[in-house]
Amino acid sequence: MATELVISDYLGRSASALSRLRHRRPRVHCLTNYVAMQLSANLPLAVGAVPSMTMEAEAMPDFVESTASLLVNLGQLDALRREAAPAAIDAATMLQRPWVLDPVKVDRSGDRRAFAQGLLDRGPAILRCNTVERPFLNAAAQTVVVVTGELDRIVQADREIEIGGGSPLMDRVTAMGCAGSALAAAFLAVEPDPFVAALSAMLVMKVAGSRAAERAEGPGSFQPAFLDAVYALEPENLRAEGIVR
Amino acid sequence: MATELVISDYLGRSASALSRLRHRRPRVHCLTNYVAMQLSANLPLAVGAVPSMTMEAEAMPDFVESTASLLVNLGQLDALRREAAPAAIDAATMLQRPWVLDPVKVDRSGDRRAFAQGLLDRGPAILRCNTVERPFLNAAAQTVVVVTGELDRIVQADREIEIGGGSPLMDRVTAMGCAGSALAAAFLAVEPDPFVAALSAMLVMKVAGSRAAERAEGPGSFQPAFLDAVYALEPENLRAEGIVR
Amino acid sequence: MATELVISDYLGRSASALSRLRHRRPRVHCLTNYVAMQLSANLPLAVGAVPSMTMEAEAMPDFVESTASLLVNLGQLDALRREAAPAAIDAATMLQRPWVLDPVKVDRSGDRRAFAQGLLDRGPAILRCNTVERPFLNAAAQTVVVVTGELDRIVQADREIEIGGGSPLMDRVTAMGCAGSALAAAFLAVEPDPFVAALSAMLVMKVAGSRAAERAEGPGSFQPAFLDAVYALEPENLRAEGIVR
Repeated sequence: MATELVISDYLGRSASALSRLRHRRPRVHCLTNYVAMQLSANLPLAVGAVPSMTMEAEAMPDFVESTASLLVNLGQLDALRREAAPAAIDAATMLQRPWVLDPVKVDRSGDRRAFAQGLLDRGPAILRCNTVERPFLNAAAQTVVVVTGELDRIVQADREIEIGGGSPLMDRVTAMGCAGSALAAAFLAVEPDPFVAALSAMLVMKVAGSRAAERAEGPGSFQPAFLDAVYALEPENLRAEGIVR
Repeated sequence: MATELVISDYLGRSASALSRLRHRRPRVHCLTNYVAMQLSANLPLAVGAVPSMTMEAEAMPDFVESTASLLVNLGQLDALRREAAPAAIDAATMLQRPWVLDPVKVDRSGDRRAFAQGLLDRGPAILRCNTVERPFLNAAAQTVVVVTGELDRIVQADREIEIGGGSPLMDRVTAMGCAGSALAAAFLAVEPDPFVAALSAMLVMKVAGSRAAERAEGPGSFQPAFLDAVYALEPENLRAEGIVR
Repeated sequence: MATELVISDYLGRSASALSRLRHRRPRVHCLTNYVAMQLSANLPLAVGAVPSMTMEAEAMPDFVESTASLLVNLGQLDALRREAAPAAIDAATMLQRPWVLDPVKVDRSGDRRAFAQGLLDRGPAILRCNTVERPFLNAAAQTVVVVTGELDRIVQADREIEIGGGSPLMDRVTAMGCAGSALAAAFLAVEPDPFVAALSAMLVMKVAGSRAAERAEGPGSFQPAFLDAVYALEPENLRAEGIVR
């Protein structure tokens, strides 16, 4: 990002998106893996969104129609979600619901990589993955790419921003990355610019993660402290505590 | 409910049911959705029951026979539970095990609604749903209907009771409603009157919810505080702290 | 175990295994049931291992190859894991990855018992079960058998050890036994003697369980306190606080 002025503008837009999310309480449909489900429901709930998580392909038109945005997460990719994912994306495309792709562990399985690339070619608003997964996928230029790690990096065409903060404990709690993708999907429900939606979600993760680490005594107490911190977060906190460049 | 005398009698019967649940430690089989499983096991465990959660249709006769009551929850209704639910109800009917139906999100899918109505016609002891789901289903007169919300309302034929208390944080933790249904199933294992079983479960939810809210700093710390409160609850607490009319 | 000298030697070897686990951070693949997944991922993470939990049979060669050890847990045994388990064991056998079998609730279903015995005949490094499950299975002499309860007993050929400590609250949190099996699999990744790997895992469970019980106010706060305690555990704590005979 070029200047402090631009960064300040983006922080302001993120704060505004958080404010809208809190007040509008949109529905978000999350197709996600079994390990991540509970946290991926509790995180959108903590910030004010209303998640649904049904996975049958037949129910996708009904559920996607009644929600504002969609998450497609490929962890523990079984036949159920292998069928539901394209059905949900069909519905989302037809109904113009923006969606997030989280291609979990594409570095570990060639088959999953091919499946993920097929979905990625259909144009999600946001691709959220980690550093080891990123090289295995080719994203189109308009898709916002979020690579999370010690620093989160968000890229789209000529826009790029990095976010610091958070806590090493976030790597010791399962499904924090997956839950972050669910949060990005929730922000897509209220924010038309997917770059800002992604930034807002990652700022919430990092700022709440930093706050939770101050109270936690380990990964066990970190998770409830993190959800409490997300729940308590005010839009102006993103502006004041977000570490971006 | 007509008089204070009647209410006091029902509170006493609920306290007695809680006492029996704590001492007898009955088994309860829970068919439930993936998001709700952990909390729906931990809540019966906290109150003293012993849950099992196997979902294969073939195992239903064995598992239902070795338990005292059954929960059938339709959240994330996949092929596995679509087959297991009728098999479990067959076994429960033959073995005279009482059961609870939780028809999650029948307001969102016509297909699920039809499936739920088919099960409801088989006569569960208790139907537990929320306000938006209730209008989509027709319950037989003998089924106790529990509609949860800010006030919980329990109705059967000419009996009706409302329960207050609890906390708004209960809506910010996923699967609290589903777990309440599992708790109602646990009470059916020790209480022959399903109206009293339902009342006992909802009183535990509300009283423990109120207590947990005093300690919690948000939805993250609310969940462990809630389980702690359920674990610590004494039968006389239902009588002293239950808000009913 | 014969002498104090031998016990002291085994405690030392367990402390050393914990130290290696913390530093090497090995991958462990866990096939487990839906209720247990979150805790069975968070427990290995807390101690330093990196779990994966994919269940499709087709992905087993890729995932088992990229991990150092394997857990096969039979809770909620559906078609998915019924296919994945033998596929994972084929891969583990060919690639010489040691594995743990957890035959959940074989006392409740004849069909599951037969399936579990078939897997057990393939020679897991460790069988981890509880007291009521043990009589239903025949283990080969070289398999280390861990029967957990108020006292944990670990047996292999002429070696036998018992571990005390822990807390009654461990029975009030779902999937603690399953998560202990996942931890045993994690220790197999760094410890060639499966008797020592099993002992190390059970010592961590009991010592961290005792520590967590001092802080917990019930089963809700016990779970985060337990993960915090595991995270904070130093190798020398096993030697100083392990109660064995």
